[in-house]
Amino acid sequence: MGPVSLSIGVDIGGTKVLAAVVDNSGRVLDTEATATPSAGVGLEQASVQEVEDALVDVVGRLLAVYGRCPVGVAAAGFVDRDAQRVRFAPHLPWRDEPLSPSLTKRLGVRILGDVLVDNDATAAMWAEAQFGAAGHVRDAVMITLGTGIGGGLLMHGSVHRGTNGMAGEFGHMQMVPDGLPCQCGRSGCWEQYCSGRALARSAAAAGSELSGPALTTAAHEGDPIALAAYDEVGHWLGVGVANLVAAFDPPLVVVGGGVSAAGDLLLGRARTSMAESLVGAGYRDLPELVGAELGPLAGVIGIADLARTAGRIRRVGRWGRAPSRVARGRARRR
Amino acid sequence: MGPVSLSIGVDIGGTKVLAAVVDNSGRVLDTEATATPSAGVGLEQASVQEVEDALVDVVGRLLAVYGRCPVGVAAAGFVDRDAQRVRFAPHLPWRDEPLSPSLTKRLGVRILGDVLVDNDATAAMWAEAQFGAAGHVRDAVMITLGTGIGGGLLMHGSVHRGTNGMAGEFGHMQMVPDGLPCQCGRSGCWEQYCSGRALARSAAAAGSELSGPALTTAAHEGDPIALAAYDEVGHWLGVGVANLVAAFDPPLVVVGGGVSAAGDLLLGRARTSMAESLVGAGYRDLPELVGAELGPLAGVIGIADLARTAGRIRRVGRWGRAPSRVARGRARRR
Repeated sequence: MGPVSLSIGVDIGGTKVLAAVVDNSGRVLDTEATATPSAGVGLEQASVQEVEDALVDVVGRLLAVYGRCPVGVAAAGFVDRDAQRVRFAPHLPWRDEPLSPSLTKRLGVRILGDVLVDNDATAAMWAEAQFGAAGHVRDAVMITLGTGIGGGLLMHGSVHRGTNGMAGEFGHMQMVPDGLPCQCGRSGCWEQYCSGRALARSAAAAGSELSGPALTTAAHEGDPIALAAYDEVGHWLGVGVANLVAAFDPPLVVVGGGVSAAGDLLLGRARTSMAESLVGAGYRDLPELVGAELGPLAGVIGIADLARTAGRIRRVGRWGRAPSRVARGRARRR
Repeated sequence: MGPVSLSIGVDIGGTKVLAAVVDNSGRVLDTEATATPSAGVGLEQASVQEVEDALVDVVGRLLAVYGRCPVGVAAAGFVDRDAQRVRFAPHLPWRDEPLSPSLTKRLGVRILGDVLVDNDATAAMWAEAQFGAAGHVRDAVMITLGTGIGGGLLMHGSVHRGTNGMAGEFGHMQMVPDGLPCQCGRSGCWEQYCSGRALARSAAAAGSELSGPALTTAAHEGDPIALAAYDEVGHWLGVGVANLVAAFDPPLVVVGGGVSAAGDLLLGRARTSMAESLVGAGYRDLPELVGAELGPLAGVIGIADLARTAGRIRRVGRWGRAPSRVARGRARRR
């Protein structure tokens, strides 16, 4: 066992900003949370200043107790491939802004590591790969089912981020031509048929007003409307997973996010549907389709670990570009 | 420049078995061809013996002139990840058989390299990556449009073969729920809307009897039915490419195969459709969408290069398993 090293992960969700101190074995030592600015105020977005203030608030409280350490921030959205800039986050005010320098300065963590920013599903996938359901493989597909779909790709043991840092946007693969309209401006996107929103829509069409955890509970109790909603969404999960498996052929698909709390109510149907939809199913080993293991803390655990190891990772080129000057300096000092 | 080393690539197509001697700069020095056994006799398949005889015939003629060298065989179908076994090839008699040992024995090429078997689109992608349109990138998606769709994935400069060796089966991603029936037994597969078969179907629906190269010529001459067919197929090409780009975020998509001979008649429409269908198109660099450069010889060039470098590639684990005894022996002798 080497020495314990700590880092802080922050997950900016739709309702709260959650920060956690995480050690190098993925254990969460402490958390702090605050409401996401403007959450619940409809479509108005908080200002950059307000979101930064919230971040500095929760992270500052942890830094005061645990001392300086690397900080990673995860959010739904597109992040530049150098993990320093949010290109576009639907529920956040950043637009192609270099997030990291400003936060690094305000948090005063420059010496031990810059602030790393990444997509929340990518962070969750990394956590599952390091400490959870994907620890035994080098290639995997991660799908997080919440209000929409998030995604991550583990390839050859590394995060596959893509040329823009936008790989893994599985939720906006078109599944139905001229299908249901999507918040992204197009129609027929997978997440319109396979997500918490799709579950609630399916239940509502059958006369139920349940959604979210209440719908899950109803399904576990045998409510036929809730069961039918999970059956429908499970079917679409299987079809979409089959498409991803046809393309990547991974040994493992991990399903996380709030909707995955339904467990085999969802995954059982999805496994059947995947096998029916997958090309050459009779001539291949089907991938494992399993639930995530780390639950709602996967995002903060993963982004903390990515921040902790960012220097090392950049040094070996995992981020697909030359090491930053800071990382190179750090590497030389070792 | 190092010394020239030769290898032989064979592409087993629907109508002919084409073998070529290729040097290490991708130059084709010589070719031999014979009819694919049972081609044109409907659904009857040739026996394993007949296909092997055809292979031994064309390869033997080249070996007699150029001496012993590694041999690679490319065919449409699923190949085991160790590249020694055809799991399933729709138009060939092999069913989960170790192809390579038998051919290695009959061809007498064991000493300089075993026979390597791979998917034809993967081979074409490798050729484009080494000598053609994808030479400047480390990640790319390759799509070959013929009667159906073949696919290959270049990831981090290597072929991504997947856990079963079946990655890149893009043509059987479901694009239309309850859509057109597919030869694979399911329905709504991408290749039913985007392929040579789809072009001919579109033209036939408008009263034309043209298909294949004649349809391409008619489109170049301005025939409205032919142009409409390319427009429709180009649209579907763009939608499917957008799905793959949402998942992988590659800098480059290469389109090869016979249908790609239409050039910008097809790719122009596909680029527009891709940009319309791609999530976050306004916040990312769109990938280049280009035609393949190596034409119909891409498959033999790629499989020859894969066979030539198989020992070296296996040694560094690129095939995802420990080096074979033969490869290890070769490595020690170097």
